Amino acid sequence: IPSRLPDVGTSIFSVMSKMALEHGAINLSQGFPDFAIDETIVHLVHRYMLEGHNQYAPMPGTPALRQIIAQVIRETYDHTVDPETEITITPGATEAIFAAIAAFVGPGDEVILFDPAYDSYDPAIRLNGGIPVHLSLQYPTFTIDWDIVRTRITPRTRMIMINTPHNPCGVTLSKEALRTLETLAEQHNLLILSDEVYERLIFDGQQHQSVLRYPALAARSLAVFSFGKTFHATGWKVGYVVAPTPLMHEVRKAHQFIAFSVNTPVQLALAEYMQVPDRYLSLAAFYQQKRDFFLEHLRGSSFEPVACKGSYFQLLSYKNISHQPDTAMAEELTKKFKVAAIPVSVFYQDRTDNHLLRFCFAKKEETLSKACEILRKI
Amino acid sequence: IPSRLPDVGTSIFSVMSKMALEHGAINLSQGFPDFAIDETIVHLVHRYMLEGHNQYAPMPGTPALRQIIAQVIRETYDHTVDPETEITITPGATEAIFAAIAAFVGPGDEVILFDPAYDSYDPAIRLNGGIPVHLSLQYPTFTIDWDIVRTRITPRTRMIMINTPHNPCGVTLSKEALRTLETLAEQHNLLILSDEVYERLIFDGQQHQSVLRYPALAARSLAVFSFGKTFHATGWKVGYVVAPTPLMHEVRKAHQFIAFSVNTPVQLALAEYMQVPDRYLSLAAFYQQKRDFFLEHLRGSSFEPVACKGSYFQLLSYKNISHQPDTAMAEELTKKFKVAAIPVSVFYQDRTDNHLLRFCFAKKEETLSKACEILRKI
Ligand SMILES: CSCCC(=O)C(=O)O
Ligand SMILES: CSCCC(=O)C(=O)O
Repeated sequence: IPSRLPDVGTSIFSVMSKMALEHGAINLSQGFPDFAIDETIVHLVHRYMLEGHNQYAPMPGTPALRQIIAQVIRETYDHTVDPETEITITPGATEAIFAAIAAFVGPGDEVILFDPAYDSYDPAIRLNGGIPVHLSLQYPTFTIDWDIVRTRITPRTRMIMINTPHNPCGVTLSKEALRTLETLAEQHNLLILSDEVYERLIFDGQQHQSVLRYPALAARSLAVFSFGKTFHATGWKVGYVVAPTPLMHEVRKAHQFIAFSVNTPVQLALAEYMQVPDRYLSLAAFYQQKRDFFLEHLRGSSFEPVACKGSYFQLLSYKNISHQPDTAMAEELTKKFKVAAIPVSVFYQDRTDNHLLRFCFAKKEETLSKACEILRKI
Repeated sequence: IPSRLPDVGTSIFSVMSKMALEHGAINLSQGFPDFAIDETIVHLVHRYMLEGHNQYAPMPGTPALRQIIAQVIRETYDHTVDPETEITITPGATEAIFAAIAAFVGPGDEVILFDPAYDSYDPAIRLNGGIPVHLSLQYPTFTIDWDIVRTRITPRTRMIMINTPHNPCGVTLSKEALRTLETLAEQHNLLILSDEVYERLIFDGQQHQSVLRYPALAARSLAVFSFGKTFHATGWKVGYVVAPTPLMHEVRKAHQFIAFSVNTPVQLALAEYMQVPDRYLSLAAFYQQKRDFFLEHLRGSSFEPVACKGSYFQLLSYKNISHQPDTAMAEELTKKFKVAAIPVSVFYQDRTDNHLLRFCFAKKEETLSKACEILRKI
């Protein structure tokens, strides 16, 4: 019986977290916070469970959660969505991305994506019979070369995937990029799948350029968000997808047979927790401080930071330290120096290696300063 | 942009639950309990959340939960599985089924399934490019006609899907059926996808015939289970899939890009909760009593029960009451008489209508007796 994903191995996040654990390394590889979440939301889950909200949520999500999301989208992006038909709660952003692809990408359909690309995109396209068309972000700015995009659009191009703030690079898309995308998508009748799970982690006074800010773009976009990132609970696995009614109609057809619904008491707790705006508005300052702390404590190190404008990932170049492949460097760093990071080449289909490692700074200051102390000595 | 599932509508469970709500009907349609869950497990979730277990679980599930599952499988089915490589925790059984299909069923691959079939099976096969080959269970025993199965196996047949105890029929597969399946699967090198989410809801002193009891069958089976059914918390959305290492290797490749992982504190709570065997061993007697209560209170009604040997569903024939289609009957029952049930024809590809409705008896006695009082008058 042949494999449907013959060239897929175990996700780099599992590999590096396991290696970190086995070698007692500080784990800055897989993206997740190492500090406590707000107890308020824990008590809310408990209360909803005790009150008996333990059976299936409606397939698209609990109404209360969809309503507050619609309200926050209106306030944040000046965009109106109908919570009844344009928002679906998913068991994590990964399932949202998979369902959005399953709904629209079939055999022979091409999807343009940009490397380095989050590792679930390509297999999700291929499992559905689609053809991933990998373009590379320009090095070292990690911007999109729109002239190249234009040459690669064909009559079979169905979708372009974007990701801002970007994992693993920490770059953000500009207004101009979104406008160009809007024009291209209209010209060629393309769908946009926009992974915006780090929407709140955006630094230096920037405004997050969500597809939802651009009406003509929003009209053909599937935008994916994550509660795990915003409320520091990656292990709760709740995300959502926003799309105009006719597109969402198709996404839900797929979603209802992939996952059906999401943990009910957790959804209700999130809905109540989100009523206080500071709980999500404070995120940018919170993580900018962590980024700055990390960079500050790295000063004097031979690792060279590549600008981070959003997300909780900082790329560091080790080209002044070693010429070995980034996978070997990540392994050595983990096993010998006891700091785990993610090699960036694994996010390139052609394994482009710019001698970059990705470090997650969603950690306690104590963790970050310990890691930096080690990194400064290398 | 064409639909990938043009002939799929909203799941019947969403449709009927919504109709029940809108018309104030007693909801015996969608399968979920209306009584409280054990507070012990609620407090366990709370404790694990407060203790800080809120980040990503390992992709295959938390080790503690996989270990206790392996132990219970050994004790229940006399079958040894390696928790490290042969069990994967999933966000509900639906995702387990989808991932198992995604891992093995590609364009042109045929999958034999039996109608009436749970509504996610067919679209899951088709989204992956597979060809669902619908055979019907024999009426009115709802047994498999193996002679027909033999004539429908082709070189493209990759998988046979079974479901025991059966939703919606409440029938169970016999030892002989499993032996026949084992022989056929070996002869034709087929995979078996066995939906056993009602494994604990089995009545009248029967033994659940899991594929895991049959070594040669277990060696080529993907067996799917559900915590929601066993611990009365359908809204928590946790299930698991069991398969031999080489098969699980492929399932995990798909699962890691469809969902990645499952709510961490809920997994830890389930692992601890399962340490007390009576918590799952008591299920059969608990639900048999509910079935008996329901049938008792139906006595004198014109609805005719079709034997229920497992699951929490009871089929009732209304052929003595009306000749209208079962979808019309379900609608009338909900809107006019205020009891919601599921029309069985929706689970047949060809909409075979035997004038049967499915009633969920996972309800408080008070709910069941109220519903029966209404049904007796029709
Ligand atoms: C789903 S595990 C990976 C977490 C993550 O998004 C990352 O580390 O990039
Ligand atoms: C996933 S909603 C349907 C619940 C169920 O399994 C049923 O009612 O058959």
